[in-house]
Amino acid sequence: MSDLRIDGGRLWDRLEALGEVGAVHGAHGERGCARLALTDADRDGRDLVVGWMRDLGMQVSTDAVGNVVAVHPGTDADLAPVMIGSHIDTVRTGGRFDGNLGVLAGLQVVETLITARVTTRRPVAVAFFTGEEGARFQPDMLGSLVYVGGMALEDALDVRDADGVRLGDDLARIGYAGMTPCPAAAAPHAYVELHIEQGPVLEDEGITIGVVTGVQGISWTALTITGQSAHAGTTPMRLRHDPGYVAAAITTGVRSIATGMGGTQVATVGRCDLHPNLVNVVAATATMTVDLRNTDEALLQEAEARFDTLSTQAAEAEGVTISRRTLARFQPVAFDPGMVDLVGQTATDLGFTTRRMPSGAGHDAQMLARICPTSMIFVPSVDGLSHNIAEYTTPADVTAGADVLLRVVLAKADER
Amino acid sequence: MSDLRIDGGRLWDRLEALGEVGAVHGAHGERGCARLALTDADRDGRDLVVGWMRDLGMQVSTDAVGNVVAVHPGTDADLAPVMIGSHIDTVRTGGRFDGNLGVLAGLQVVETLITARVTTRRPVAVAFFTGEEGARFQPDMLGSLVYVGGMALEDALDVRDADGVRLGDDLARIGYAGMTPCPAAAAPHAYVELHIEQGPVLEDEGITIGVVTGVQGISWTALTITGQSAHAGTTPMRLRHDPGYVAAAITTGVRSIATGMGGTQVATVGRCDLHPNLVNVVAATATMTVDLRNTDEALLQEAEARFDTLSTQAAEAEGVTISRRTLARFQPVAFDPGMVDLVGQTATDLGFTTRRMPSGAGHDAQMLARICPTSMIFVPSVDGLSHNIAEYTTPADVTAGADVLLRVVLAKADER
Repeated sequence: MSDLRIDGGRLWDRLEALGEVGAVHGAHGERGCARLALTDADRDGRDLVVGWMRDLGMQVSTDAVGNVVAVHPGTDADLAPVMIGSHIDTVRTGGRFDGNLGVLAGLQVVETLITARVTTRRPVAVAFFTGEEGARFQPDMLGSLVYVGGMALEDALDVRDADGVRLGDDLARIGYAGMTPCPAAAAPHAYVELHIEQGPVLEDEGITIGVVTGVQGISWTALTITGQSAHAGTTPMRLRHDPGYVAAAITTGVRSIATGMGGTQVATVGRCDLHPNLVNVVAATATMTVDLRNTDEALLQEAEARFDTLSTQAAEAEGVTISRRTLARFQPVAFDPGMVDLVGQTATDLGFTTRRMPSGAGHDAQMLARICPTSMIFVPSVDGLSHNIAEYTTPADVTAGADVLLRVVLAKADER
Repeated sequence: MSDLRIDGGRLWDRLEALGEVGAVHGAHGERGCARLALTDADRDGRDLVVGWMRDLGMQVSTDAVGNVVAVHPGTDADLAPVMIGSHIDTVRTGGRFDGNLGVLAGLQVVETLITARVTTRRPVAVAFFTGEEGARFQPDMLGSLVYVGGMALEDALDVRDADGVRLGDDLARIGYAGMTPCPAAAAPHAYVELHIEQGPVLEDEGITIGVVTGVQGISWTALTITGQSAHAGTTPMRLRHDPGYVAAAITTGVRSIATGMGGTQVATVGRCDLHPNLVNVVAATATMTVDLRNTDEALLQEAEARFDTLSTQAAEAEGVTISRRTLARFQPVAFDPGMVDLVGQTATDLGFTTRRMPSGAGHDAQMLARICPTSMIFVPSVDGLSHNIAEYTTPADVTAGADVLLRVVLAKADER
C-alpha cells in the first residue's frame, strides 16, 4: 500500500470540469467561478458532483440544510466513517480550487481505493457543506455549523440573502432540501480537509504542504467616527475635528499593534468611507472596519485592548466621537494534536517539505473540530491569491496535497 | 455723512426673500438654498435681484457670459465706478449667505445713498457673476474669470456640466445670454466684496470683521495607489502591499506637514476610497485627494515638496506604486495694500473688532484683483459652517459688514 498514489490527472480534469459550471473567464486567461450558494449554478455544480459520487457506487444522502454526504463502505459497517470534506459554493467571482479541491480530492481518494482494490476497516465519507463562503447567506460555514449542532436548523433555513430570499426556499427550489436529519446523528471518527492556503506563505517559503494547526481567532469591529465637516481652506488645523484623520491614525496604529506584537497577529483596515468624500471638505463622518486575528485567544484579547486604547485616544485628541460595533468574534480553534502530527508525518514520509501554520481563513474543518478529531492540509496558492478568478494552484501541488490526504485517510480508516 | 448706516432689517428681509428661491428646509429648522448656476432656480433668483436693481433706478446690463452689472450714477459720468460684487448661485445644498450677502449688501449701499440723498463723485456698480461656485460648471469663479480676461468667452460658453449640458445653451435658455461684451471694456476704479468667512476663525476669536489680505494658493493632487489585494487572515504583515495603509500614512503625514510648518498652511485629505472596500480583504487600490493651501507661494511649494517626499517614501516602504495627478493649482493672491488698510481702518473707526486674515476659499474678488485695487470684508460664520443648509451669520454681523462696505465704497467713490 506504500506506493498507493492519487491519479493527479484525473483529479485535475475534474477540477476543470466543475470549474466550467458557472465559469467566469478573465481578460488575461483567468478562469474563475461564480457559484453562489443555492443558485442555479450551485445546483448544477452539486448535480455534477453527486453524479460522480454515484458513479463511484457511494451511498449519497442530503440533509435538511443541503449538506451532501457520500459514503464508501469499509469492512466494519458499525464503525464511524473517516470523513473528507469541504464545500463547492464560491464567492461571486471566485476561483476553481477554493473548496472544490477538498471535495474532488476526496472522491479521488475513494476512486484510488476502488481501483487499487484496497479496503479499509472504516467507511470513508466525502461531504460538501452548504454555504461555506457566506457570500450570499450569512454566517459563513453555515452548513457545517448546523451539521455540528452550532446553529438551529430552523434558524438556518430562515436566513435571507440581500434580496430577502429565504435560504430554505432556495434550498427546496434547487432540490437539495434533503430528508437526512441535521445536525448529524453521529460524529465521524475523524475529519480531514485538503484546501488551498489562500495566502502567500507557502509559496514565499517554497514549501509544498502546510500542516494546519488550527484556525485563527477573529475579531471584527465597525467604527463610525463623527467629527465636524468643515471647509478645507478656511478651517485652521487647530480648529479641526476631522474623522478622516482619526480613521487614518487608527489605520496606521493597528498596523503598529500587529507588527509590534508579532507572531500570528494580523490587523487589517480593508474598508473605509468618508462622507461627504470631497476634495475640499473636511469629512463629517468616517466609517471603517478593523479586522484583528490571532491563533492565541489571550493575545487576540490583548490586540483588542490595544486597539480600544488607540481609538479612544485618537478620538479624544481630535475631538471626535467614535461608536464601535462588533461585527464578528470567533475564538481560535486548535486542531487535534494527534491529527496534526499525522498530517505532518505523512507529508514528510512522502518526501514533501512541510510547515506548521494556522489557517487565517475560516473553514468547515473548524466546525467539525467541535465533534471529532480534525486536521487540514494546505497546498500553495500562486501569488497568495484566492476569492479571485486568478486563483491558481499548480497540478503538482494539487497532486501532492491529495496524496497526503489519501495517506492520512488510510491511516485513520484502519483504526479500530 | 459720518452717521450714515445701512438699514440692516431691510437687508435681512432681502436675504430671506432671495433665500426662499430654491429653498431647502432641514429637519432641524435649517433654511438653505439650492440654486445651481443657470438652472431655473438660478434664473428665478436672478430675476428677483434684477427687479430690485431696477426698483433702485439702476442701469442694468447683462454680459455675454451672464454676469449682471447694475450702475448707480455718480456726479462724474466719465469716471470708472466703484464696484461691489459677489455671486448668487449656490452649491447643491448651500446656505442663504454665501455670495448673496455681498450682492444684496451692495444694493443696500445704493439704497442708503438714495434715501439719504448722498451723491458720490464716481458711479457705484453692483455686480453678480455667473457660476462662482463651480458646483455645476467648472472652473469655479467662471464668470469673473471671463470678466477679467482670464478665460476666453467661447471656451466658457462651451463648458459642459456632468450631464453634458453646454453652459452657453443653458445661459440662453434662462434668458441671461446678454449683449454686453465680456471681458469688460474697462476696469472698475476699485472692487469690494463683503462675504461670510465660511470658516471658524472670527467666531473662535470673538471678532466681528475680517480684513481680508488675500486668497490662499491652492494645490490639489489626486493619488491612485496600487498594491496587492490579499486575504486579511492569511497574509502575514511582512508580505503585504497595502494601499489602504499607505493612504492612511499619507493622511497622517500631511497633517504633520501642516502642523509642522504652521502659519497659514493647511492640509486636508477629504476624499479616500478603497477597492474592493471589504472588511476581510487588503485593498487592491486606494484613491485619495490631498488639498494643500498657503498664502505664501514659496511655502506652498515647500509643502508640495514635503508631500511628494512623504508619498514616495511611504510607497517604497510598502512596495506599492503611486500615480499622481494635479487637479488644481492656483498661486496665492495678495489684495491691494491700500484697499486692505482702508477696510481695516474703516471697521476700526466704526468700533468693530478686526483681524487681518487670508481667505481660505476662492472668491470673485481674486479675479477682480487682476484688473483693479480690490479688498474683501469677512463677517463670522456660526460654527464655521458654509456650503451647508445650516450656514448662518447673525443679523448684527450682517449689518456690521454692510456698514463697513458702505463706508469703504463712500471713501473710494469720492476719489478723483
